[in-house]
Amino acid sequence: MARRMFGQIGRLKKEKIEEYKTLHAAVWPDVLKTITECNLENYSIFIKGDLVFSYFEYTGTDYEADMEKMAADETTQKWWGYTKPCFEKYDADSEAAFYEDMESIFYYK
Amino acid sequence: MARRMFGQIGRLKKEKIEEYKTLHAAVWPDVLKTITECNLENYSIFIKGDLVFSYFEYTGTDYEADMEKMAADETTQKWWGYTKPCFEKYDADSEAAFYEDMESIFYYK
Repeated sequence: MARRMFGQIGRLKKEKIEEYKTLHAAVWPDVLKTITECNLENYSIFIKGDLVFSYFEYTGTDYEADMEKMAADETTQKWWGYTKPCFEKYDADSEAAFYEDMESIFYYK
Repeated sequence: MARRMFGQIGRLKKEKIEEYKTLHAAVWPDVLKTITECNLENYSIFIKGDLVFSYFEYTGTDYEADMEKMAADETTQKWWGYTKPCFEKYDADSEAAFYEDMESIFYYK
């Protein structure tokens, strides 16, 4: 089973940066459980100024289906009710205010 | 031996984005060898617009010493002679034009 590495970037509202950090210092156990059930591993979030970067690895066989499964999870929806309002649109071209996929240009085991 | 996750961000000159991608499509073998010898693993680079994000894991016992070792490697210095000119300063507060460490705010295995 191939492991796929993902990088995503987002921009936080300046007045919500501290709240986003506080939320992620104690992520709800059921949100973590769903991450595992959706085949995501080795999940990190980094921050610099108002930019947040997420890195994770996908170990399943149908990424889109697993992301739909995550989005359908009730606890994850409640969690996003707290985290998504911390974001503003990444840039003028963004459709929504949340994480956006980056392009992988290098990988070395 | 603890594994430490690192995230770094940098800003490319707009006219150098394609060159940076091309360079990383075929990184020199001796640069990769030095990465391994300096105890870095699972190294990814992602790009969006002019922003680049690097993720890697450090498995050694003295990160600063290993980074000095990397900086002293002649081939790596030559490689940086191609890659560093692709960068501009990340922001007005930046000391130099290259990658800057981000703060880790979340990790889940």
